[in-house]
Amino acid sequence: SLSTDGKASGVVFADYNIYKGKAALSASPRLPQFSKLESGSLKVERQGTIMLSFSPAIGERKYDWEKKQLFALSPTEIGSLISLGPDEACEFFHDPSMKTSNAGQVRKTLQVKPHADGSGYFISLSVVNNVQKISERVTVPVTKAEFAVMRTAFSFALPHIMGWDRYINQPPKSIA
Amino acid sequence: SLSTDGKASGVVFADYNIYKGKAALSASPRLPQFSKLESGSLKVERQGTIMLSFSPAIGERKYDWEKKQLFALSPTEIGSLISLGPDEACEFFHDPSMKTSNAGQVRKTLQVKPHADGSGYFISLSVVNNVQKISERVTVPVTKAEFAVMRTAFSFALPHIMGWDRYINQPPKSIA
Amino acid sequence: SLSTDGKASGVVFADYNIYKGKAALSASPRLPQFSKLESGSLKVERQGTIMLSFSPAIGERKYDWEKKQLFALSPTEIGSLISLGPDEACEFFHDPSMKTSNAGQVRKTLQVKPHADGSGYFISLSVVNNVQKISERVTVPVTKAEFAVMRTAFSFALPHIMGWDRYINQPPKSIA
Amino acid sequence: SLSTDGKASGVVFADYNIYKGKAALSASPRLPQFSKLESGSLKVERQGTIMLSFSPAIGERKYDWEKKQLFALSPTEIGSLISLGPDEACEFFHDPSMKTSNAGQVRKTLQVKPHADGSGYFISLSVVNNVQKISERVTVPVTKAEFAVMRTAFSFALPHIMGWDRYINQPPKSIA
Repeated sequence: SLSTDGKASGVVFADYNIYKGKAALSASPRLPQFSKLESGSLKVERQGTIMLSFSPAIGERKYDWEKKQLFALSPTEIGSLISLGPDEACEFFHDPSMKTSNAGQVRKTLQVKPHADGSGYFISLSVVNNVQKISERVTVPVTKAEFAVMRTAFSFALPHIMGWDRYINQPPKSIA
Repeated sequence: SLSTDGKASGVVFADYNIYKGKAALSASPRLPQFSKLESGSLKVERQGTIMLSFSPAIGERKYDWEKKQLFALSPTEIGSLISLGPDEACEFFHDPSMKTSNAGQVRKTLQVKPHADGSGYFISLSVVNNVQKISERVTVPVTKAEFAVMRTAFSFALPHIMGWDRYINQPPKSIA
Repeated sequence: SLSTDGKASGVVFADYNIYKGKAALSASPRLPQFSKLESGSLKVERQGTIMLSFSPAIGERKYDWEKKQLFALSPTEIGSLISLGPDEACEFFHDPSMKTSNAGQVRKTLQVKPHADGSGYFISLSVVNNVQKISERVTVPVTKAEFAVMRTAFSFALPHIMGWDRYINQPPKSIA
Repeated sequence: SLSTDGKASGVVFADYNIYKGKAALSASPRLPQFSKLESGSLKVERQGTIMLSFSPAIGERKYDWEKKQLFALSPTEIGSLISLGPDEACEFFHDPSMKTSNAGQVRKTLQVKPHADGSGYFISLSVVNNVQKISERVTVPVTKAEFAVMRTAFSFALPHIMGWDRYINQPPKSIA
């Protein structure tokens, strides 16, 4: 519910959506998770991410959100994106089952490649599932303006994803 | 009224005004609107904007605010402006009646063009009303310093316009 | 006093000080002032500034704060500083008695000039008082690193000086 | 403990960790300390820092945190890092016992040197202890993406380390 001080006690959904012909790309932050130490202090247990999701088009500006594929960007991957030059590319590999007995079964690859004329990037997600013998690939063209929104919003979110805002909003220490 | 914790419960007016010979250009953010889901969660229903308004001069540093023309910048248009290089231009088209029976009657065009010497930009708003057979155009020259204020303030406002600050200021999650 | 929620009810002093051989340069933000409309809304009545002060040296790392000269940077002057290229200069003129009968008596000039080797800037304040026939000039060399601190802190402060943070921290609007 | 408004009353630990083969580099902000004046105002008594710590590797992704060496970056040193060009280097010297009778006994040097191919930096900490006749040096290679995280997080933290956020979050002043 919406409390009197204007803060929501429930979850807030605030995706940045880029709707294109073959798919929609959505981005939204995921906050870090904290563990509470015996001293009462909080420790970042799991860093936050920026979750990218790719949903295939099934009509004009209609997308099949049920079939969306997810890719969670780590702080360092976010750092790579926000410092990407206009002619640069980058590529990240994720294994959703890393360090489990299912490791290696599914391989996700996110690729960011510049347009030849410098007018933006192609962002692609490939998912290869060696068990189900499925290989999917979806590409969303992103304009320079849309990438500037992502860069600004990701830069804003990054310190929060790292938990630095929690540290910084502690009460001031007085030494007088 | 101004509550004890220093937050205003009423509206706050905080325009950035650029006063020039033929017109004044004002910019101010407009927050997103949320819908409340049954779960108590909030969802961005309509994204915020940065509202530009152009008011014609009617004397020395006097402007006719009643005759102002508005242009609401979307997040992606803001992304275009804040990533604009010193020699680059951009142009946006709005139809205030888009998707209604009046579509196509009024066409607004915002143009941002660089000064030849790189010392700033010309920002123009054209409004063509095909019903009233009216065509207006107002141009405000913006210095590099004024554009830097806009870029910094727009970059600050962008995550708020997208609703990302509401998401991020939720209470920390503990997994301990 | 320091209230329980960690916010200070009194004033907070947080200058950024650059101590050099002939003078010290201090910078700190000054918040905007609001007027309260009958509707309960707040309106920015006077924009904030970043106050620069120059204090002459009277010994090793000792400065005569009583003799400091002030220069209050407007939002647009801040925009000029934070967008200054490594080889660029800028200059601002202030008349503290502008629009009064004493106009023209005192003229303050702030100059920012790049070092020849690109390693920083010279920041100078000249004060010419035509009544007292006094002309003072103090210059502080500022390294690239110190200027980066100023650029980052000034960029952080700018939306607050403009009052945009007050607008943006209003409770979320629900349209459901 | 975690209070109902989502703010932690205890300390929050939120390091940014870069794990490499020979050592781990951690960074986290340290807030400024305030003194309380008789008027009830707060004054920054000691500026905050960003604390870097270097811990030697003792196995695969295992580090000896007990043997970590610390280096506290001042605001101006942070300014130097966040404005560092891709081909630039910088170097800082600290004497932990400066201005005491032990001055000169220990000398810490932090060096940041660009990779030859522009793909990042080497960050090294040297500690020379003239009393114990010990000289240690640890180097962590930092990618461009990791450095972008540091630049973004350090830029976010800088105004807080300087105490400017405390000044800026004071209640608005009304002059009506």
